[in-house]
Amino acid sequence: MVFDPTRDRLILFANESFYAAIRAGDMTAMDELWASDAPVACIHPGWPILVGRDDVIASWRTILQSPPGVQQRDARVVPIEEGMALVVCRELIGDTILAATNVFLRERGDWRLVHHQAGPTSARRRRPRAAPRVVH
Amino acid sequence: MVFDPTRDRLILFANESFYAAIRAGDMTAMDELWASDAPVACIHPGWPILVGRDDVIASWRTILQSPPGVQQRDARVVPIEEGMALVVCRELIGDTILAATNVFLRERGDWRLVHHQAGPTSARRRRPRAAPRVVH
Repeated sequence: MVFDPTRDRLILFANESFYAAIRAGDMTAMDELWASDAPVACIHPGWPILVGRDDVIASWRTILQSPPGVQQRDARVVPIEEGMALVVCRELIGDTILAATNVFLRERGDWRLVHHQAGPTSARRRRPRAAPRVVH
Repeated sequence: MVFDPTRDRLILFANESFYAAIRAGDMTAMDELWASDAPVACIHPGWPILVGRDDVIASWRTILQSPPGVQQRDARVVPIEEGMALVVCRELIGDTILAATNVFLRERGDWRLVHHQAGPTSARRRRPRAAPRVVH
């Protein structure tokens, strides 16, 4: 993997757009954020494992009926391949902190989600953090 | 993505090898299962987010000191790119059922982990299942 700060900023922007869509309850944005050519999957805490675009989008339609006030923190890009990357981050929902995996694929120039999982993490922060980082 | 049953069987085999290594407390196998060229990350339930091979391998060294009797069920391949795939599956640990994301990358011919996250899922099964499936 060649270090490409522009690429990684675009991935972090897509990641933040995902959480902005959740906060806004914006199903149009959410739908556009998910890959349409590649297969997708999603694991919400306490839900069955969802595989396939129809089930994944339907789950977000349910969740966004009462948009959770989620904020993402400490997002880090783990650049696996040229057109694909993981982002790991924390999700803050009230007093709850979750850890999330978001997998992005570049489809026709846009970074789009192919997978999301959120689950419990330790509450403690490992270090003070100011800005998103790229891991290389 | 071209449908390639041989490829997908190899990915499911790597996925089962990962859980076999956990059950056996086999750190040599676990170390070999993780990518060594690509960056890696891991999210264990209740742990901080781990990024980087040293932290990930150290976490498994801690966990495998008392190997959990984990079984994987209902593994499904979500084939994202030619040399990279997600597997989603359930993890059965005693009476606990977790949902897991395992991200595999082909490195020098072998399918190796670049990411693992496990977290709570619903206990109910969506449908009876007999064998691992490939999603296309």
